[in-house]
Amino acid sequence: MAKALIVGVGDGLSASLARRLANRGYDLVLAARDTDKLADLAAETGASTVACDASDPASVDGLFERVDAVDGPLAVAIYNPSARVRGPLVELAAEDVRRALEVTAFGAFLTAQRAAVRMLDAGAGTILFTGASAGVKGYAKSAPFAMGKFALRGLAQSMARELHPQGIHVGHIVIDGGIRNPGREEPADKPDSMLDPDRIAETYMQLVDQDRSVWSWEIEVRPWVETF
Amino acid sequence: MAKALIVGVGDGLSASLARRLANRGYDLVLAARDTDKLADLAAETGASTVACDASDPASVDGLFERVDAVDGPLAVAIYNPSARVRGPLVELAAEDVRRALEVTAFGAFLTAQRAAVRMLDAGAGTILFTGASAGVKGYAKSAPFAMGKFALRGLAQSMARELHPQGIHVGHIVIDGGIRNPGREEPADKPDSMLDPDRIAETYMQLVDQDRSVWSWEIEVRPWVETF
Amino acid sequence: MAKALIVGVGDGLSASLARRLANRGYDLVLAARDTDKLADLAAETGASTVACDASDPASVDGLFERVDAVDGPLAVAIYNPSARVRGPLVELAAEDVRRALEVTAFGAFLTAQRAAVRMLDAGAGTILFTGASAGVKGYAKSAPFAMGKFALRGLAQSMARELHPQGIHVGHIVIDGGIRNPGREEPADKPDSMLDPDRIAETYMQLVDQDRSVWSWEIEVRPWVETF
Amino acid sequence: MAKALIVGVGDGLSASLARRLANRGYDLVLAARDTDKLADLAAETGASTVACDASDPASVDGLFERVDAVDGPLAVAIYNPSARVRGPLVELAAEDVRRALEVTAFGAFLTAQRAAVRMLDAGAGTILFTGASAGVKGYAKSAPFAMGKFALRGLAQSMARELHPQGIHVGHIVIDGGIRNPGREEPADKPDSMLDPDRIAETYMQLVDQDRSVWSWEIEVRPWVETF
Repeated sequence: MAKALIVGVGDGLSASLARRLANRGYDLVLAARDTDKLADLAAETGASTVACDASDPASVDGLFERVDAVDGPLAVAIYNPSARVRGPLVELAAEDVRRALEVTAFGAFLTAQRAAVRMLDAGAGTILFTGASAGVKGYAKSAPFAMGKFALRGLAQSMARELHPQGIHVGHIVIDGGIRNPGREEPADKPDSMLDPDRIAETYMQLVDQDRSVWSWEIEVRPWVETF
Repeated sequence: MAKALIVGVGDGLSASLARRLANRGYDLVLAARDTDKLADLAAETGASTVACDASDPASVDGLFERVDAVDGPLAVAIYNPSARVRGPLVELAAEDVRRALEVTAFGAFLTAQRAAVRMLDAGAGTILFTGASAGVKGYAKSAPFAMGKFALRGLAQSMARELHPQGIHVGHIVIDGGIRNPGREEPADKPDSMLDPDRIAETYMQLVDQDRSVWSWEIEVRPWVETF
Repeated sequence: MAKALIVGVGDGLSASLARRLANRGYDLVLAARDTDKLADLAAETGASTVACDASDPASVDGLFERVDAVDGPLAVAIYNPSARVRGPLVELAAEDVRRALEVTAFGAFLTAQRAAVRMLDAGAGTILFTGASAGVKGYAKSAPFAMGKFALRGLAQSMARELHPQGIHVGHIVIDGGIRNPGREEPADKPDSMLDPDRIAETYMQLVDQDRSVWSWEIEVRPWVETF
Repeated sequence: MAKALIVGVGDGLSASLARRLANRGYDLVLAARDTDKLADLAAETGASTVACDASDPASVDGLFERVDAVDGPLAVAIYNPSARVRGPLVELAAEDVRRALEVTAFGAFLTAQRAAVRMLDAGAGTILFTGASAGVKGYAKSAPFAMGKFALRGLAQSMARELHPQGIHVGHIVIDGGIRNPGREEPADKPDSMLDPDRIAETYMQLVDQDRSVWSWEIEVRPWVETF
């Protein structure tokens, strides 16, 4: 059986991804800073959960020891975390900016590198990054979020150029808009104005399934009424 | 029953698209400059075929009369044609450059506008454009192809911004690499180094199926070994 | 003495360009559909004026006969014309869309090709295109303008890749915002909210002057208060 | 008299920038990790030199105390440092990647924020970032350099959107190619195939001089023979 790893799991998109992957029969490992809240999802999907600080190399090494302890090749790795640090430039705290880079980009590198080592051994696998429109366009009063998501996109693009010819598929999904989740419903008079996490997860699965003759490295998803 | 229209049909991608759409139960209309070569595909898919010069407004009007004569709403319209006029800038013939713009971009407008009129009446539909890497990056010795495909991308992006909020999905597929077809097989020692048309067609169908809460306006497809 | 050609001359930017070039000592040729309105500018700058339909190959050939009749190498060629055809997609007239492509992009090709032939003989020269934000971002209800300006950008980028190594500098200036001119003053309470044509012209001259070790192919200019 | 600050000074571009700014009469502050090597340049330009670790908030605060001790408004601030960490993804050391982000992007934030605070008080100023093609295109085997320079570009773009309307000009210069310097001459048979630092510095000065009605936020410079 093949394994799938999701780093950065809570409600919303990551839970949808976990359910999709479990339904397809992957043995799941779910990593989060706080695993207490993952009990129900783990029970539902049969996943192992691992507490992990994604921006700490030693903690990520510990996570991959747990991944290695599960049988089968690592087929899918997904990196979600980001720090949405925003505000007027002159009011930002240095440590928050550093943290934004570490959580959004440096942690992505740590997970992706360790996943790539394992996938290159097998000669196959898919690594997906959850991006944002902030990674394509740097908005005012949002410098740290732009810095982190731009860096993530640079990582994903560099990895796609490097790893595609080695058989590893790298994808960057640009999510442009708010994601529906139990705590944030969309306005009743604006149907489908927020992204349905199950439908975003479908896009992730399509990237996992893509034939290597037609690999996409990036795809944007956006509600029909969202301006861009 | 819903209808689907493909403009620019020959071998390769367009035939794969026709088969996929027919399998899903769409009533198909296939347009090409020369319909003689479409007899087998039409027989296989139950499609109507219409001879059409896609860059001639009157000819496109005639095509849409034929489309209107088929029952049901127009659910899908796909525009494929392009003129791959290339060569050193100083050697290009003016009429070839004009033709490249007309076939690749002006014809796309003619088809898309007429399709949009019909889809807006129904409040739904998908319009897809077959793009190329030449529409994102202007290569040397390829000015007319760049001009046509850049213009096509500008059309698609403008239409996405305008029509998405009106319920019409507009997609631009960037095909980066050579497409396998009966006359152009890939080297035996380079597996999957050319795009499999059936797999590209799958990507088109995924855009047709996307929920409006997660519409993509653009997606790139590229063989794993293609440099970019 | 070296020559400079400006295609598409009226008020505003093109007049500023003419004055700058004349001050630097270039022998100027100014082309426009209607040369009557150019009398004052021609007198001021010592320019020859030529009536020309920039999208008609024969008319452009006639223009270059006039250019060739002036002594000296053609050092600078600038292409300005565009057709700002806009409106909801379904209301656009086919002929207006065709005209937008021809004036904005096909005419640019005609001028640029003929200029390149002459500059390649001399091994030097600068070709500049007046672009717009519409060439980078396709706005809603503006498909024809997007098509024309995207195509122009594709032409410029392809030419830069092809001609830079042959010693011809190609530049695309993205003008994002309204240009001040005698008939369109900016609001008194919003200083510098429209582009000063003399200052835009300065940017063009900087591209003309750039050392070939640091050639830019594209530059954006935008008022400080313009959103983007 | 107005002040100018350059962070990240050695040979090559930064020395050319220092000479240009000194010639224009700015009181210069030059910051580098190691100021010993700056003695000659400081003597030539009359600059103060400050030892500074640009990625350490306390060290940058110390630098700005020194800047504040010089009379006059801070008119120009330029950030150069980057860590060119490259190599196959699987061979990269985590600490080198973290360092690449800190030096290239986090340090840029620290300098830019402190410069912006001072310029906003005066209602004027220019902040320039030395970028690279790696910030626009993520190359294979170069993930950390891509991450750092993408993040830098995100910072610059976000700051341009936020600070332009407040009167502060933000520019990102994309340097595509090798820069000539005393230790790295270009091949004799390939004239001008490396960027002349004095000519790059000219481009920086043009951004400093731009009228606010025509501000550019980004410009690429590239030798004529460089492929892109």
